[in-house]
Amino acid sequence: MSVRLELIALAGFPQVAPGDDLAALIAGNLAENELTLQAGDVLVLAQKIVSKAEGRYRRLADVEPGPRALELALQADKDPRLVELILSESREVLRVRPGVIIVEHRQGYVHANAGIDRSNIPDTAEDPQVLLLPEDCDASAATLRAALAGLCGGIDVQVIINDSAGRAWRNGTVGMALGTAGLEPLFNQVGEYDLFGNLLQVTEAAVADELAAAASLVMGQAAEGLPVVLVRGARLRRANDGSRSLLRPRTMDMFR
Amino acid sequence: MSVRLELIALAGFPQVAPGDDLAALIAGNLAENELTLQAGDVLVLAQKIVSKAEGRYRRLADVEPGPRALELALQADKDPRLVELILSESREVLRVRPGVIIVEHRQGYVHANAGIDRSNIPDTAEDPQVLLLPEDCDASAATLRAALAGLCGGIDVQVIINDSAGRAWRNGTVGMALGTAGLEPLFNQVGEYDLFGNLLQVTEAAVADELAAAASLVMGQAAEGLPVVLVRGARLRRANDGSRSLLRPRTMDMFR
Repeated sequence: MSVRLELIALAGFPQVAPGDDLAALIAGNLAENELTLQAGDVLVLAQKIVSKAEGRYRRLADVEPGPRALELALQADKDPRLVELILSESREVLRVRPGVIIVEHRQGYVHANAGIDRSNIPDTAEDPQVLLLPEDCDASAATLRAALAGLCGGIDVQVIINDSAGRAWRNGTVGMALGTAGLEPLFNQVGEYDLFGNLLQVTEAAVADELAAAASLVMGQAAEGLPVVLVRGARLRRANDGSRSLLRPRTMDMFR
Repeated sequence: MSVRLELIALAGFPQVAPGDDLAALIAGNLAENELTLQAGDVLVLAQKIVSKAEGRYRRLADVEPGPRALELALQADKDPRLVELILSESREVLRVRPGVIIVEHRQGYVHANAGIDRSNIPDTAEDPQVLLLPEDCDASAATLRAALAGLCGGIDVQVIINDSAGRAWRNGTVGMALGTAGLEPLFNQVGEYDLFGNLLQVTEAAVADELAAAASLVMGQAAEGLPVVLVRGARLRRANDGSRSLLRPRTMDMFR
């Protein structure tokens, strides 16, 4: 049997402001798009709308850079106040180059500039703002999952919060899962057998990242940005673990 | 307007043998699935079927390991003949750990064990075989693209050859584009403006990798494996460049 996967980036998603009820916005936007959630659906949300709803804006004018931020700002050719925020969101600085500071984020993933963003943010040259990642992406995803179930007749939707991320050896960004709820982020086939009866050895697929990447593709295809993607047919296994299993433990990491 | 992307992993794709005409097999399989190629369609092919059609099998009994292979085989706890093949397919060894040798492949991508595979290969314990990556994935993709256009009424289909690949800091594999034809693998929005009129600075998306990842997700969802995925709605820009732009130049690589 053929296998079909469909991704629908929802039209007309409204601008999100701090304090907005994101689950209610999503439920309303699904209805406007004449879509009804079904069991097994996955919703992929751009990190940015979650951060906006959670009010994760910071005014650079409110930030006092410390000595380390001042030093790194010179190396990275960045605003020292932004660097102070990057450091405050990070556990470890991995690399510094002009334009980029690659860190391990507090939430465990390796990410450029701690995922702090200046694009698509209401801003003025006099009072620049930036947007931090959500405080806890797994918790945000779990909260949204529960609220969506409440709003959508008890349908148990799976949720991924994604962001565009750079890779070690390849140009361009790909969508990456920062937070998940209701799904197993890794699909483990180790111990199963292949077509010819040989035991499969290393076939653990990062399905949450693969879906995050697919969703990123459709999100980016409209000039205005489409921050919510409904995925049908993903058939991800259910779980309540969040996304931590995607993070390679430092002791297993060969590339720091 | 909403944006839709559909991926269809084709049912009933036959086993591929050396010398098979892959374009003809794909055209026949599309017809069996009652699908007709349309302008803008992308076909994502698992590397394995391309390698099989190209006869990239190697019998380990035919390989004589050299001194470097013998030394690395001890470190990696691998068959020295397999290590000899990994070295012959590689430009540089990046890391060696028990079970894995991470290399820069001749074709430029960083890949575990040079992408050499033992699963889903007809094999016996007495005469083990392995399967190398295609000789030149971009050339294979271009050849398939031309042949498919010939078989499918001149439709200019875009082609991606993908493989599952590990990442530096994250568990699990994701689909990665090893070769492309007919498309721009990077979608460059640098120089465009965001919602609030700020110039976008770093938003080059590796769309070929994002599609390769999405296709990998549906390929992996059947026990027998589904090696051909038809993608509708990807709206990738046309180009004749192959996939080289996805490879970060060594001088820009911070993680070797």
